[in-house]
Amino acid sequence: MNHPTYFETFDIGELLAAYPIGDAFTARYARMSRDELFALQDERFRKLMKRGWEIPFYRRLWGTQGIQPGDIAGLADIAKLPVYDKSDLMASVEAHPPYGDFAGRGDTPVVLHTTSGTTGRPQPLLFGPKGREIGNLLVGRMYRWMGLRADDVVQSVYGHGMINGGHYIREAVTHFTNATFLSAGTGIETRSAQQVRLMADFGATVLVGFVDYLRKLAEVAEGEGLKDAISIRMIIGHLGTEDRAAIERTWPGAKAYDWYGVGDTGSIAGEGPERDGLYVWEDAHFLELLDVDSGAAVDPGGTGDMVVTCLYKDDIAPCIRFNTHDITHERDGRGEIAFKRIAGFKGRSDNMVKLRGINVFPHAVAALIEDRADLTGEYVCRVRRDAAGRDSMEVTLESRGGSDLAQLSDLLRRGLGVEIEVALCEPGGTAAATQVDVRQKPLRLIDERRP
Amino acid sequence: MNHPTYFETFDIGELLAAYPIGDAFTARYARMSRDELFALQDERFRKLMKRGWEIPFYRRLWGTQGIQPGDIAGLADIAKLPVYDKSDLMASVEAHPPYGDFAGRGDTPVVLHTTSGTTGRPQPLLFGPKGREIGNLLVGRMYRWMGLRADDVVQSVYGHGMINGGHYIREAVTHFTNATFLSAGTGIETRSAQQVRLMADFGATVLVGFVDYLRKLAEVAEGEGLKDAISIRMIIGHLGTEDRAAIERTWPGAKAYDWYGVGDTGSIAGEGPERDGLYVWEDAHFLELLDVDSGAAVDPGGTGDMVVTCLYKDDIAPCIRFNTHDITHERDGRGEIAFKRIAGFKGRSDNMVKLRGINVFPHAVAALIEDRADLTGEYVCRVRRDAAGRDSMEVTLESRGGSDLAQLSDLLRRGLGVEIEVALCEPGGTAAATQVDVRQKPLRLIDERRP
Repeated sequence: MNHPTYFETFDIGELLAAYPIGDAFTARYARMSRDELFALQDERFRKLMKRGWEIPFYRRLWGTQGIQPGDIAGLADIAKLPVYDKSDLMASVEAHPPYGDFAGRGDTPVVLHTTSGTTGRPQPLLFGPKGREIGNLLVGRMYRWMGLRADDVVQSVYGHGMINGGHYIREAVTHFTNATFLSAGTGIETRSAQQVRLMADFGATVLVGFVDYLRKLAEVAEGEGLKDAISIRMIIGHLGTEDRAAIERTWPGAKAYDWYGVGDTGSIAGEGPERDGLYVWEDAHFLELLDVDSGAAVDPGGTGDMVVTCLYKDDIAPCIRFNTHDITHERDGRGEIAFKRIAGFKGRSDNMVKLRGINVFPHAVAALIEDRADLTGEYVCRVRRDAAGRDSMEVTLESRGGSDLAQLSDLLRRGLGVEIEVALCEPGGTAAATQVDVRQKPLRLIDERRP
Repeated sequence: MNHPTYFETFDIGELLAAYPIGDAFTARYARMSRDELFALQDERFRKLMKRGWEIPFYRRLWGTQGIQPGDIAGLADIAKLPVYDKSDLMASVEAHPPYGDFAGRGDTPVVLHTTSGTTGRPQPLLFGPKGREIGNLLVGRMYRWMGLRADDVVQSVYGHGMINGGHYIREAVTHFTNATFLSAGTGIETRSAQQVRLMADFGATVLVGFVDYLRKLAEVAEGEGLKDAISIRMIIGHLGTEDRAAIERTWPGAKAYDWYGVGDTGSIAGEGPERDGLYVWEDAHFLELLDVDSGAAVDPGGTGDMVVTCLYKDDIAPCIRFNTHDITHERDGRGEIAFKRIAGFKGRSDNMVKLRGINVFPHAVAALIEDRADLTGEYVCRVRRDAAGRDSMEVTLESRGGSDLAQLSDLLRRGLGVEIEVALCEPGGTAAATQVDVRQKPLRLIDERRP
């Protein structure tokens, strides 16, 4: 009946020394050279690989390719390892329910959640205390570097229940910043009118969560007559292909900050205070960009799948060459610290549609229609296949009136690089298809090609 | 920008030494004498009082009664201090929005949540890291003593969002037991059909939460054809006046365990493995039972308001003579450990109805109608006042058919000690009034006396 409790399984002092936060973070990585950084990554990767070989999932993944432990001497050899993705994890769950065989659970406590299931069936996510808290630290460190202060009041609209998101962000802010945290959750957990009342009552200064919903809350605040009682200075979320200016306009005075991460990996990259590209947290992750078709490393500046190795997660559910199927490209030049920068989420490669030989990413529509008074910014793409096997895409845009269909068709054709069909609907007319009111991440692509 | 993070503000080793868990818990308190226990409480109380005098709320509460720090030499003097209740805290919030002046916040991080608002407007709850984690520990320790094992899978139906409950129990199980935790949340966060699917998929062995909803989930599992795929061995919740046998019958093979606590205090008392009364965690709380009318200590065995002093919470929002307005009585004799035992929640004194000089507690109806095949166990009480100012109570019971109204009237009259009216309705007929489907704690008393 006696076993080490959560806090007894890691040493907070060691953890903060290995992953510094606040001033210690910028002080260390502002002066570190790329060579020093690679050496740090290499050391962490070797330890991670030892752990990987203990996990049945990786023994199988690597073993079937004939890879032996001695083949991977260090990080320079990482490309010899196969990538895997969510479908491999779900197959592992199928074969070894309910957790799969990718976690390597022992006697220490675990934290169990699931993904939101945005891109399919919810996937179990398992964390050891150390991996969990470093994951939390990476978010707290990022928020603080962006500019979060101890006297801020952070309202989170990330959901709870089994989903990791809300719990993860709550832990990050509570454990690694001194800001006050309001765990409002989704509009289902705290109704939108209550959300804006909470902001006003507790003086929220920072909003975090999915920007679609944060944008909606601005309208609700207006309707409740509370807009002037609320003063938001930062919005931290996944901007991706969203329109930063439009989000900032809905909450006047707020600066929006972008970051990127998935449930398996935690925060991979985020903007610095200057908001000029997303820094990859390279002390904690090794990020590769691989060509969507060939799987080879892209040329400098080329767009590819983000394939992530979590250098810090060497306890439970290690993550070694995980293909997120989210695409981006690397930025040029050096930023404020040694870490490389990426452009952020630019679409999903498994959502990519090939139209007459051209790769089209439905999420790219958002940036093309931003900042127009005649449109709400909401949209949905439908892909169809005709009898001859030819694919076409129709984009439905919500118009407030006065939109010129021919001009919009031209705008999208030039932006996407291929002819598409455009349809208009009333404001709110895409909601049923995108499920924007109930999903944290709205659907933007409806694939009608399958019978 | 640099300040101590959550984990740096307390020492887990000191905390576990002061509040032992597992075998160390039973070993210490099985052999401790009542005198030794009082000395431990007295020492903790003196430290707590020092902190209390730093808090504006208490300086005002005590100061207006002319109390000086020197007047309270130790725990023996506690009755010299006034009691306070939620209305005083809400008045403090009103005067000093949004947090009130009862927390005593400094530079250390805080955890902020609210009560569920079951008995009125949600109240802000603030915790310091140390107080928070000892509160978590008390629940983890209790669950483990009840019989929770490291290989158990605990499904929690306590709600999240701003409400403390779900977060608190998640932290307790994750931080202080090695059991696997499923943070399903309420039926709004995870739909009931998904809840029972989760139980089956992840092999839940323990259910925690409000028993009304857990009882409903048994029906849903039946309807989904999953009842045989689920094997629950423990149910831990607030049984209070609920019917233990009925709950156990809905989940065959499960033993139900009762505990008691409120948001401000954390777990105050819980059953031991033998389920013979609720042990008050006297190393962490000093519990008084005060007469509902006079405010004096009740005679041995007498029923009174539970007035709680949290000996462990000497960082943020100390709790010194908080009147919960929940009533109980003390049990006779010594149990497995030195801590005294209470009967558990027996109703709310502010829900108490005086009918012709007799104190009637609506929650007492539950125990009277338990275990009858003709009734569902759901009920609602309505109190009315006639033109002459005379109060009467009508109890509506859900009947599956075949109920004898005269016999039920007689049963309730004898059980409550006063004549009441009885009405019958169809199964589900009280749901609109009790809000059993949407509230974690259903309403059992509708007071129609006010115009």
